[in-house]
Amino acid sequence: MSGEGLRIAVVGATGNVGGVMRQCLHERHLDEGNEIIYFATERSAGRVLDGRTVQALSDDSDLTGIDIALFSAGAGTSRQWSPRFVEAGATVIDNSSAFRHDPNVPLVVAEVNPHALQRHRGLIANPNCSTMQMVVALAPIHHAAGIERLIVATYQAISGTGHWALEEFDNQVRADVAGEPVPAPKVYPEQIAFNVIGAAGSFPDGDDHTDEERKLMFETRKILEDEQIGVAATCVRVPVRISHSEVVNVQTREPLSAAQARGLLAHAAGVILENVPSPLRAEGHDEVFVGRLRDDDSHPRAISMFIVADNLRKGAATNAVQIAELLIRDGLLPSRASAAA
Amino acid sequence: MSGEGLRIAVVGATGNVGGVMRQCLHERHLDEGNEIIYFATERSAGRVLDGRTVQALSDDSDLTGIDIALFSAGAGTSRQWSPRFVEAGATVIDNSSAFRHDPNVPLVVAEVNPHALQRHRGLIANPNCSTMQMVVALAPIHHAAGIERLIVATYQAISGTGHWALEEFDNQVRADVAGEPVPAPKVYPEQIAFNVIGAAGSFPDGDDHTDEERKLMFETRKILEDEQIGVAATCVRVPVRISHSEVVNVQTREPLSAAQARGLLAHAAGVILENVPSPLRAEGHDEVFVGRLRDDDSHPRAISMFIVADNLRKGAATNAVQIAELLIRDGLLPSRASAAA
Repeated sequence: MSGEGLRIAVVGATGNVGGVMRQCLHERHLDEGNEIIYFATERSAGRVLDGRTVQALSDDSDLTGIDIALFSAGAGTSRQWSPRFVEAGATVIDNSSAFRHDPNVPLVVAEVNPHALQRHRGLIANPNCSTMQMVVALAPIHHAAGIERLIVATYQAISGTGHWALEEFDNQVRADVAGEPVPAPKVYPEQIAFNVIGAAGSFPDGDDHTDEERKLMFETRKILEDEQIGVAATCVRVPVRISHSEVVNVQTREPLSAAQARGLLAHAAGVILENVPSPLRAEGHDEVFVGRLRDDDSHPRAISMFIVADNLRKGAATNAVQIAELLIRDGLLPSRASAAA
Repeated sequence: MSGEGLRIAVVGATGNVGGVMRQCLHERHLDEGNEIIYFATERSAGRVLDGRTVQALSDDSDLTGIDIALFSAGAGTSRQWSPRFVEAGATVIDNSSAFRHDPNVPLVVAEVNPHALQRHRGLIANPNCSTMQMVVALAPIHHAAGIERLIVATYQAISGTGHWALEEFDNQVRADVAGEPVPAPKVYPEQIAFNVIGAAGSFPDGDDHTDEERKLMFETRKILEDEQIGVAATCVRVPVRISHSEVVNVQTREPLSAAQARGLLAHAAGVILENVPSPLRAEGHDEVFVGRLRDDDSHPRAISMFIVADNLRKGAATNAVQIAELLIRDGLLPSRASAAA
């Protein structure tokens, strides 16, 4: 998709996800015939990425003429800046958690609920990585048999926490190999190298579930448009750099065998069926890999599966860029309303 | 416990678990006033460990007078040799999977079903590591409210696969840190460093569950003495050296809240309650660590928890030595029947 003469901004262009967003825009040819602008913090301003000078986001920033803004700079930046972009005429696709709960903001997975884009008011939320990959695999099952309850255990990669977490991990691994004392953790509550942290995310005041678990519970219902789906989620961080894995037990309302689910997923958009997918092999791919599909003998209407995807790609950047493509294709950019008319 | 004048053999003394068995025997003073003998393969014979010369197991081996034999040398060795030890008068505590399905062989977790030792006929099976730690945490819940269904996802350490797996892992980590190509895997089907393998164990012919998953399903029912317990298990290998973690969703027959479960587990034998236990902190300990205890809103009678234990200790060696202690304490060694009478 190219040559639309659009102005597309990436806000948070120097971050982990921002970097993959830039790559996705290029891979999907959105940088051809469109103008691409990079925004980041004051500290990164002036850096040249892909031949483009990174601009600081400030009160002096000129936001006029931006058609699409892809935000991936944290919830604070999104809350502060995305309304200004929208006011200036842009449609914002926000990768943060800032607006996902807002009933006026569609929460969209390209393969699952693209129709929700029709009712956007300038702001579209990109789901959390662990929810994203799960619903791509679950949507065909939900449409065929109705999902009653999900019991999810995640194996989440360190890149989901960002650059400093990856650096912390690499320093710990290096120290261990060198036989030196492992430096004390700063990003995570304890060492992540050669360890597992049984609570990914943080605990909001008084809650016994992490924010990551609450996202999985809330966002799944919103995207699948069914408030009756029960979700039991335990989010766990594992010493893997890229790609989240998930063990998912799916109870359906109507009986659905693993063989039937396999039939549905064999033709599902964005899904690749494997025997045993893995984070390393999913890395760099845009698809969601589903394996270990089997009947669960402990319940008359349950199947088990193992879902893996690159958390920076389909879990974040790829989906944001897919949403941009859908907005362009379906004429859903207010800034281009006159041009489309 | 010491000074019984017993002869205790460790078969497979040079292996991962054998090493921890030797350590446990020492820590628990069973090497005081008792004779300890080490057996291993021909290749390890002659090595001196803890001041004792390792003997090869062969047709010439003198098995007379052995009261207790702790086996941890694989199912093949157990099948071949343990009947000979029993015939010679020993009581065998076998850490392999060889006899766990045998209805005449008690499968015992010291804190859970020590009464099953009463009916032993010379052979006692030590459960698989992932089952062991889980049932220690679940037994008090089962006794209070009856377990209806378990949905388990494991995060299993590499040491469970043995010495060569650990070496393979360390070589992969070293190569990655050095920026060299990671050597091709030989033990696991793919690279385990910085990766997750979504099927721990191997697939018996035609089965869509791994042998590790089948063990968790079968052994849980046998130890808790309830064939009606439903178990959905997904066993996953993670890049951790020691200690298995498990996310367990527990559906009970009678309602039981997380708060009630916490009350039960606060006083349960062998259990330590924490907020978020971890493999690194469980390493070297004999207890089972339970955390993330919380109600599951997706089911009226379900709670979720995170269970962690040192797979070489409570998951294997410690329990085997605890069984030896129980046999001695309760006068359950046929070889000592006359002495006890």
